[in-house]
Amino acid sequence: MGMIGGGKGAFIGSIHRTAASLDGLVELVCGALSSKPNVAKESGKDLFLKEDRTYTCYQELIEKESKLAVDERIDFVSIVTPNYAHFQPAMLALSHGFHVMIEKPITFTLEEANTLQRKVGETGLLLGLTHTYSGYPMVKQARQMVKEGALGKIRKIIVEYPQGWLSQLIENEGNRQAEWRTDPARSGKSGCMGDIGVHAAHLAEYVSGLKIKSVCADLNIVVEGRALDDDCNVLVKFDNAAAGVLIASQIATGEENALRIRVYGERGGLEWAQQEPNSLIARWQDKPMQVLRSGANYKDPLSSFAKHNFRTPGGHPEGYIEAFANIYRNFSLTLLAKLEGRVPSAEELDFPTVADGVRGMAFIEAVVASGMSEQKWTPFIH
Amino acid sequence: MGMIGGGKGAFIGSIHRTAASLDGLVELVCGALSSKPNVAKESGKDLFLKEDRTYTCYQELIEKESKLAVDERIDFVSIVTPNYAHFQPAMLALSHGFHVMIEKPITFTLEEANTLQRKVGETGLLLGLTHTYSGYPMVKQARQMVKEGALGKIRKIIVEYPQGWLSQLIENEGNRQAEWRTDPARSGKSGCMGDIGVHAAHLAEYVSGLKIKSVCADLNIVVEGRALDDDCNVLVKFDNAAAGVLIASQIATGEENALRIRVYGERGGLEWAQQEPNSLIARWQDKPMQVLRSGANYKDPLSSFAKHNFRTPGGHPEGYIEAFANIYRNFSLTLLAKLEGRVPSAEELDFPTVADGVRGMAFIEAVVASGMSEQKWTPFIH
Amino acid sequence: MGMIGGGKGAFIGSIHRTAASLDGLVELVCGALSSKPNVAKESGKDLFLKEDRTYTCYQELIEKESKLAVDERIDFVSIVTPNYAHFQPAMLALSHGFHVMIEKPITFTLEEANTLQRKVGETGLLLGLTHTYSGYPMVKQARQMVKEGALGKIRKIIVEYPQGWLSQLIENEGNRQAEWRTDPARSGKSGCMGDIGVHAAHLAEYVSGLKIKSVCADLNIVVEGRALDDDCNVLVKFDNAAAGVLIASQIATGEENALRIRVYGERGGLEWAQQEPNSLIARWQDKPMQVLRSGANYKDPLSSFAKHNFRTPGGHPEGYIEAFANIYRNFSLTLLAKLEGRVPSAEELDFPTVADGVRGMAFIEAVVASGMSEQKWTPFIH
Amino acid sequence: MGMIGGGKGAFIGSIHRTAASLDGLVELVCGALSSKPNVAKESGKDLFLKEDRTYTCYQELIEKESKLAVDERIDFVSIVTPNYAHFQPAMLALSHGFHVMIEKPITFTLEEANTLQRKVGETGLLLGLTHTYSGYPMVKQARQMVKEGALGKIRKIIVEYPQGWLSQLIENEGNRQAEWRTDPARSGKSGCMGDIGVHAAHLAEYVSGLKIKSVCADLNIVVEGRALDDDCNVLVKFDNAAAGVLIASQIATGEENALRIRVYGERGGLEWAQQEPNSLIARWQDKPMQVLRSGANYKDPLSSFAKHNFRTPGGHPEGYIEAFANIYRNFSLTLLAKLEGRVPSAEELDFPTVADGVRGMAFIEAVVASGMSEQKWTPFIH
Repeated sequence: MGMIGGGKGAFIGSIHRTAASLDGLVELVCGALSSKPNVAKESGKDLFLKEDRTYTCYQELIEKESKLAVDERIDFVSIVTPNYAHFQPAMLALSHGFHVMIEKPITFTLEEANTLQRKVGETGLLLGLTHTYSGYPMVKQARQMVKEGALGKIRKIIVEYPQGWLSQLIENEGNRQAEWRTDPARSGKSGCMGDIGVHAAHLAEYVSGLKIKSVCADLNIVVEGRALDDDCNVLVKFDNAAAGVLIASQIATGEENALRIRVYGERGGLEWAQQEPNSLIARWQDKPMQVLRSGANYKDPLSSFAKHNFRTPGGHPEGYIEAFANIYRNFSLTLLAKLEGRVPSAEELDFPTVADGVRGMAFIEAVVASGMSEQKWTPFIH
Repeated sequence: MGMIGGGKGAFIGSIHRTAASLDGLVELVCGALSSKPNVAKESGKDLFLKEDRTYTCYQELIEKESKLAVDERIDFVSIVTPNYAHFQPAMLALSHGFHVMIEKPITFTLEEANTLQRKVGETGLLLGLTHTYSGYPMVKQARQMVKEGALGKIRKIIVEYPQGWLSQLIENEGNRQAEWRTDPARSGKSGCMGDIGVHAAHLAEYVSGLKIKSVCADLNIVVEGRALDDDCNVLVKFDNAAAGVLIASQIATGEENALRIRVYGERGGLEWAQQEPNSLIARWQDKPMQVLRSGANYKDPLSSFAKHNFRTPGGHPEGYIEAFANIYRNFSLTLLAKLEGRVPSAEELDFPTVADGVRGMAFIEAVVASGMSEQKWTPFIH
Repeated sequence: MGMIGGGKGAFIGSIHRTAASLDGLVELVCGALSSKPNVAKESGKDLFLKEDRTYTCYQELIEKESKLAVDERIDFVSIVTPNYAHFQPAMLALSHGFHVMIEKPITFTLEEANTLQRKVGETGLLLGLTHTYSGYPMVKQARQMVKEGALGKIRKIIVEYPQGWLSQLIENEGNRQAEWRTDPARSGKSGCMGDIGVHAAHLAEYVSGLKIKSVCADLNIVVEGRALDDDCNVLVKFDNAAAGVLIASQIATGEENALRIRVYGERGGLEWAQQEPNSLIARWQDKPMQVLRSGANYKDPLSSFAKHNFRTPGGHPEGYIEAFANIYRNFSLTLLAKLEGRVPSAEELDFPTVADGVRGMAFIEAVVASGMSEQKWTPFIH
Repeated sequence: MGMIGGGKGAFIGSIHRTAASLDGLVELVCGALSSKPNVAKESGKDLFLKEDRTYTCYQELIEKESKLAVDERIDFVSIVTPNYAHFQPAMLALSHGFHVMIEKPITFTLEEANTLQRKVGETGLLLGLTHTYSGYPMVKQARQMVKEGALGKIRKIIVEYPQGWLSQLIENEGNRQAEWRTDPARSGKSGCMGDIGVHAAHLAEYVSGLKIKSVCADLNIVVEGRALDDDCNVLVKFDNAAAGVLIASQIATGEENALRIRVYGERGGLEWAQQEPNSLIARWQDKPMQVLRSGANYKDPLSSFAKHNFRTPGGHPEGYIEAFANIYRNFSLTLLAKLEGRVPSAEELDFPTVADGVRGMAFIEAVVASGMSEQKWTPFIH
């Protein structure tokens, strides 16, 4: 693997590296870790990269790597730059035959995402997207329970993602994360929705197997002086007519990363919360509530999709890094299968792809349009 | 106290009686407990009422009681009939000089509520309304913390009230509660909103001290064959521009009575959940989360409004009946003060009144109108 | 009902009154509410007792009441004085034909308890004991599940009762509760064990259906200057050879009233915590954990013993006062059955009696003896 | 790093590898992964080890590696064999100048542990021990809060470690883990205490900074046919006279890995539970309970020892693997400092060493002796 972005001081780059290496399937061997050459070099040294594979821009990385012998060069690049700088390296990598892993949201605009999707289609290469939260085993368990009809027809979905870290104008106080995430030139049309709302939307669709069909969005800039939405409440309709609510906020003061989803069907409901990710609550119409636990060894066993994604027996909590690693792991296993001429299993293929990325961008378009509309419902066309 | 409605088999009537008598301030001495004379009589006997004060209709109760000597007759009536049968006994009672306690929603229509409010104004009598959930000590603590500015300006409110008991068409299976609550002729314009949405709206306004200014409602009939909404998602704007979400559902399968509110301000956020009512979670921008507990004896003490409303030291859980009783207790203490020519304290005056009832009916009007509108925002005029 | 003790400023007396009257079965009609005549009189006035039934000592109460006409005089006395003053009024009441309800621990010494038990036997009267915590519906559910063999043979019991209220020497700072509870002359041989350890022991035996056979106790006086144990850790053996731990502490700083029990059998385990009393956690060898909820309406229903003891549907939390009231309610229903010549149901008979009281006193004897012994195990003889 | 043990089918070996590599500081380059040569070879292949560094016994590994050039050979070995096979490879590794990481309990007998400690002393090499649970950031936070006196003098400690996985005789059903852990010839004198009791004892001493001075143990074999204790309850005295309870069980049916500790001092108490490891509950005498969260950025900041040991901001749960990795990380950073001639920081030095291992073995001796004694207290001599 080669990494584009993620140099010193970046948050998500180091998570990608840890996640990628967790299961011993992926090795970081080169990088263009910063757009500033000296930072790129220093960062490479810190990560024990060889000097001749520490590049100072993504073009150099892709071109030089593509000239190495097949068994020496990287298989894929991981793109962990800010949103505006996803598209070009991704296109270039695909053009040179490299598979791509990319941080969400996939691109800066929907148009870019569509172009990227076409490119992926043409090249037949893999593109993975780190919608981390769908990497948790108990999220996969929830998805399978819904799929197998345990809840009956899905009727209602509540997904919420409250954070509090932007409850003050910290982008003006030197917080780098806050700076680019609240900057339209680097983040795109939406702040809160682009950063965390897409995660919530992806999770809702992933767990329910449904597609959002229309939205009614209330997008707010709560902190004075901010340029992008930091608080969003959205009514949602799904393609099976189920109704829902999607809440995302960066000004829910005191909240950390409290992503939570509840899905209710005719016969039961499921609840999963990211901050206690090893439990899945199942409620039933006429039976006691259950708490299913990651790693558990039940007589009526957890789904193969859940089992494929934990490493430890019940009671040994796995967390965010492991969920992140599951995306890399499944991406890598699928890639390995491809390289070995083997058909990947459904469990291996279970990672977010360019299609999810496009859908995420279309979602951002829809909620931003709805946010500006006087009309109640805005269709989510895609 | 005399009771109108609440005979054999009724749920809320028995709660009213238990709550009223909990603190030894109120005694049930007469009743018109059912519109069916024989049920009224049997119910009276079960409750040890004297035969001559077991009436068979509310008119009889009010007229006969009003002819008794002042120190013998009741001070107030408690009206616990279905929604459509609140208005007339309440008006009659007020006309005869009786104070009134009434189950929510206050009336069948907004018009009736307005009339009732005028009548209360003219007579100078008390009208209490059992918005039970505002009777919990830690709800009062939350309200006072907001009032005193602990959170700074309020920015966001999420209030939700998921229940699952109507996830099947049980009104057709002989469930009496379900029958009248899903019947427009007895419940009014709205099912879910009229039954539990008004509680959520009241709680949001009570805790935040804000007023809802406009709503964008998605009201659904999820269970086929039902006549009234059973699932509602509402975007809300408050008068200080804070945004919010109000969710109420009777088809959230497996949920019991999971009313929960979160209020976020500039400096912190509060969370309270009805099913664990003795805790109030406080989150802070830069300090660890706290859990304040009912009955606790802190150096920086709980608010006098909280203290006034619990009976036991910390760790002795109080629940729904006690919250209900707090409304009766404050109503009774205020009544007592009035009778004794004393000015009631702010803590005694802290119970829902006809003004809250009118607001509740206006809220139902607004969300029903919004539910049918193509426009995003419907003003909540009142 | 007539009350002995429980005048102004007492804690438990007011709980008894509230609990007794909660269900409309019991009425307080007379009292000897304090050993100080003027306090007794004022307290009677506050409680709306008639002047001629406001007595100034228990002897007066018992004698005068016994001379009233049968349909006028009280059926039973409730004794809520400090421990040292339980025995004599209880004996006198029984001698005069009154049934007795008594606050735990039943007496000052085991000898008194034995005498009382004989007296109860001779008179054929009822004696109820307020081991409050066995009054909770989900405790009863746990007991029935164990009884019906859901867990298989019981192997291990952990019962703990941490409180923090005596973590400072508050008995020297004017705290009346603390004064008498830490005073050997008023509390008896043990402080912490006598006050809360007996509750824990009773709960363990009640839920498991087992009897404690031997104990190995570490009783400590942690706060310097205190005269009685305030922190106790006990190893326990039950009559079926199950092992257990009983922890009781008044110096677990910051804890409120955190009574909790866990019972493990061959096939599963149960957990119940007094501070969230409406849930019962069931863990299983090979199935997901369940949370059973008070008031719930499951297809495989809650036990009749649980159902008999809640008043509201699931999600309407009931608490300490309701649990307390359940003891009064079952005592009263049994008394009523007796008066009506009816055989009480098993559910009605389900309240702690003199036998539990004697056992509690024997338990205190055993742990105090063990606490002073160098030997590991001290038999719990009774 | 070279690994001894941990071949195919082993649990803890794979955890060690993942943990070691998580932070990119350690690379597995050789192994003697099984005592069965063919398993050793296959396991090496699976882990991408070079063939010539895939050894078939630990002697070969240590001798061959010691002959490699300094910059080529391993720095340390990681010993993950069953308990009985820790001592000899550890001694041999130290003799050849290799540092050692070792799975707990450190050796088979106390005598071995003492010998090993002397050897470590003589060689000046590092020996790390994976008492995983002390690797959690919030455990370190707890330790520092105690150290800095936030709770005042420590008075009471409750540490419990209930598991349910051995509630049936699964060692006879082909469960390899169960086989060796319940076999005195491979596990040592104690089953439950040797496997998990030592973790609990270590955690109690680590958090409190106190030393256990005497024990009163009740060790039981609950499952018929088992050869070692599977359920243990222990009264404990600490060197400052604080009392405590240590519970460890493998037959607490339905429990996963529910290690939990509570420490109470004069002014407050702390609670930490392994299954929700990112929270630390702090209770106070006269202030609301707090929940401190790993990764949080408080004004009054988390301890440098906590901060040093998490990788992600608050709300991104870290778990068991990360805690495990923290031990490898601190061990490696200390080793690195040593290699670079730098003095390691207190935070880097914060990992369990041979001294903890010896103490663990002495603890096992003490509780086994106490378990067989009729006397209440057995001194914990060490």
